[in-house]
Amino acid sequence: MKTRTVSELLSQENVLTEVDIKGWVRTFRANRFIALNDGSTINNIQCVIDFEKFDDTLLKRITTGAAIHVTGALVESQGKGQSVEIQVESLEVLGDSDPETYPIQPKKHSFEFLRENAHLRTRTNTFSAVMRLRSTLSFAIHKYFNDHGFYYMHTPIITGSDAEGAGEMFRVSALDPKNPPLKEDGDIDYSQDFFGKETNLTVSGQLEAETYAMSLGKVYTFGPTFRAENSNTSRHLAEFWMIEPEVAFMDLAGNMDLAEDFMKFVLKYVLEHNREDLNFLDKRLQDEDKLKPQAERNEMTLIEKLNFVTDNHFKRVSYTEAIDILRNSKPNKKKKFKYPINEWGTDLQSEHERYLVEKHFKCPVILFDYPANIKAFYMRLNDDGKTVRAMDILFPGIGEMVGGSQREERLDVLREKMAALNIPEEELWWYLDLRKYGSAVHSGFGLGFERLVMFVTGMSNIRDVIPFPRTPQNAEF
Amino acid sequence: MKTRTVSELLSQENVLTEVDIKGWVRTFRANRFIALNDGSTINNIQCVIDFEKFDDTLLKRITTGAAIHVTGALVESQGKGQSVEIQVESLEVLGDSDPETYPIQPKKHSFEFLRENAHLRTRTNTFSAVMRLRSTLSFAIHKYFNDHGFYYMHTPIITGSDAEGAGEMFRVSALDPKNPPLKEDGDIDYSQDFFGKETNLTVSGQLEAETYAMSLGKVYTFGPTFRAENSNTSRHLAEFWMIEPEVAFMDLAGNMDLAEDFMKFVLKYVLEHNREDLNFLDKRLQDEDKLKPQAERNEMTLIEKLNFVTDNHFKRVSYTEAIDILRNSKPNKKKKFKYPINEWGTDLQSEHERYLVEKHFKCPVILFDYPANIKAFYMRLNDDGKTVRAMDILFPGIGEMVGGSQREERLDVLREKMAALNIPEEELWWYLDLRKYGSAVHSGFGLGFERLVMFVTGMSNIRDVIPFPRTPQNAEF
Repeated sequence: MKTRTVSELLSQENVLTEVDIKGWVRTFRANRFIALNDGSTINNIQCVIDFEKFDDTLLKRITTGAAIHVTGALVESQGKGQSVEIQVESLEVLGDSDPETYPIQPKKHSFEFLRENAHLRTRTNTFSAVMRLRSTLSFAIHKYFNDHGFYYMHTPIITGSDAEGAGEMFRVSALDPKNPPLKEDGDIDYSQDFFGKETNLTVSGQLEAETYAMSLGKVYTFGPTFRAENSNTSRHLAEFWMIEPEVAFMDLAGNMDLAEDFMKFVLKYVLEHNREDLNFLDKRLQDEDKLKPQAERNEMTLIEKLNFVTDNHFKRVSYTEAIDILRNSKPNKKKKFKYPINEWGTDLQSEHERYLVEKHFKCPVILFDYPANIKAFYMRLNDDGKTVRAMDILFPGIGEMVGGSQREERLDVLREKMAALNIPEEELWWYLDLRKYGSAVHSGFGLGFERLVMFVTGMSNIRDVIPFPRTPQNAEF
Repeated sequence: MKTRTVSELLSQENVLTEVDIKGWVRTFRANRFIALNDGSTINNIQCVIDFEKFDDTLLKRITTGAAIHVTGALVESQGKGQSVEIQVESLEVLGDSDPETYPIQPKKHSFEFLRENAHLRTRTNTFSAVMRLRSTLSFAIHKYFNDHGFYYMHTPIITGSDAEGAGEMFRVSALDPKNPPLKEDGDIDYSQDFFGKETNLTVSGQLEAETYAMSLGKVYTFGPTFRAENSNTSRHLAEFWMIEPEVAFMDLAGNMDLAEDFMKFVLKYVLEHNREDLNFLDKRLQDEDKLKPQAERNEMTLIEKLNFVTDNHFKRVSYTEAIDILRNSKPNKKKKFKYPINEWGTDLQSEHERYLVEKHFKCPVILFDYPANIKAFYMRLNDDGKTVRAMDILFPGIGEMVGGSQREERLDVLREKMAALNIPEEELWWYLDLRKYGSAVHSGFGLGFERLVMFVTGMSNIRDVIPFPRTPQNAEF
């Protein structure tokens, strides 16, 4: 007999005389009702056993976390909360779970405790919902790009170039750390290392993605990136996943349109495909909110926040316009911002981004044409000589979700920028080649995948949206 | 006017009075025919210009590699080899390409030369076809698992556990390499490193994937893995991508069925979706073969090899049976094998695997129940006490494509194995927990993505199927 999933059985319209299922016990109450889960859905199937028919030693082994194999009839449920249930005919314990020591008890555990048991935390409703959503989001991203003629490309993880300037890097080496070979001047002799040079973990695949955009037209990356920043916050990971599309012949306006269309597709996709997981997390957040003082509660529910993005046009606003709005805003005048806005040229903080989205425009916002000196060297300089064709997409609750730009396609301008920032041309000779041979307008953006998962699941600590988080002092599992 | 892709235009059935297209010049001949490519397909669109209508300085700038913007009418082609062509009305050079220095000339380049210009090599037919196929294969993999209820999971890249024993690892560190902090005994004090312990780049996500299989049921990884082996061959990379599905409640027989179904789906998917790229590579290989002595030629064309896999049942053969067949085979008796097969217990080489597939069974072969001592510690020990429930899937031309196993689900047996191999339990406490709490039969396999891309594209050097290969002495780009 074919073993079925809980998800399959719960969507059965008809009674089945014999079904076969394997899963883990979530709860067993009154020596009669087993709530069984196999990960295929957030819902459990109720297995009803007639305890008189089973041996007492067997019944005692039906504990939270035990793996069991059940056969029986699928019938209409007598109880509330489920349409069908299994009348158990046979039950086998595949793997016991000692209730005295099993960490995941049927009660509320703190997220801190569950992080220490990250190998077991997907056995809870919250984390199984989060990780199913993470998976669906990944697929939606691949599907969107595939359906729109983009090629997926794997950019290198180990990189010999440290010119991208996006942050502190981790060193990768196979040298003896205690006795590394030295050059005459006392520096480490990396010519004797595995790659014959100093290498690091990548901070971005964008520059490499540009090489493929300038031949294959439309490409994207979706891979791990790294920062060796000692930031012990709920928003930073040392290892996280990034999505970076890059498109030839596309200008900044096209880039904004692409990003808006993409974000809406992905969010609609999870709303359609993972509604039960979202409803569970939505309710979890609402319950959590009830325990908070009024002022700290979320203004929108989780689902409302997702619909806020899918149902609204993303408002395009120049940085200069945004500064004007913020400078004259109530919170700025009343000194409610932690970082007051006084002059053109300052970088925006999350509080400003959220004000624009949640209070002023009441829709997602795309800010563009940022001051050149707060943005990266590869962004296209505008004719005003002081702004670049950058864009940031701002979402409610979280602030910046996407950052992108049109890239500087002019060889001379790019060279000047690199010289001003002391980026050696020998490091990026191949990047400059793209401007020497068949250069053209092109654009792209970056999306931190974990920020997206946080937005979609409502989880407030980034360590809770990736299976095994890497943070300062933590590389367990 | 909307800019179209070459792929869109070539599939147009109707004449269009005005089209707009951007791309790169592949060739320009007779001052009249531009072959234009934009990466959307291996085919170029022919743009016909009336040179009398254009300025001579403009015509001189239409060189191989230049980016141009063309408008004109899409008409039925007069020439052979294409159904439609563009009668150019306007032409703008977006980015020049100096024919004196542009590395990618319209002639045959060696793969070695193109590897040194990996940032430009997708501007050739061969590499654009390979990388489009790589992208389609990636999508097919995600689609297969998504359609079959698997969750995609990102296992960690930086790992604090080096117990997996799959090979040499790269060290990841943020310590000062010249003056690392030392402990009293003179060893490096990794407690002061970023993660508070020694960390490496992962060699496999399997053990972490098992944690998710034992809660979510069916999961898979698709991510980068690393080996610091100093192997300078056409089959080794220091950084490569792996696919690793892992399924709870699935035994070895189920694992074989899954792997066969999966491989067939993925190959059928590219045969259906990338036929033009495959036909091009197929012809390339046939042309290459014609230059070789008869004995070195491929017995099957590229497409025939793919159909050999999709159209045949994968024969299940035990290791013991295979050894018998090999021992009594003609090449073994005539001492044609480089590694003669004398006794049970030896590991098989590619020559043996290919003999079984290509000569003996004439179909893909799944070998199973290997000697325990040539396989990893986590594989399920059979009742005979000397073999494990391992499987290798063998393909024509390449030998092993997939390696997998049923996992040891019994705590006591796993502990004994680990003790015998000196794997400390403290390192893998979380892995052992899976056998303490709700353990069950489970299985999975690993597929080296680049080996699959080699098989599908017929490329013979693994450096030519990944965008920017990482090998000893090479981390360029």
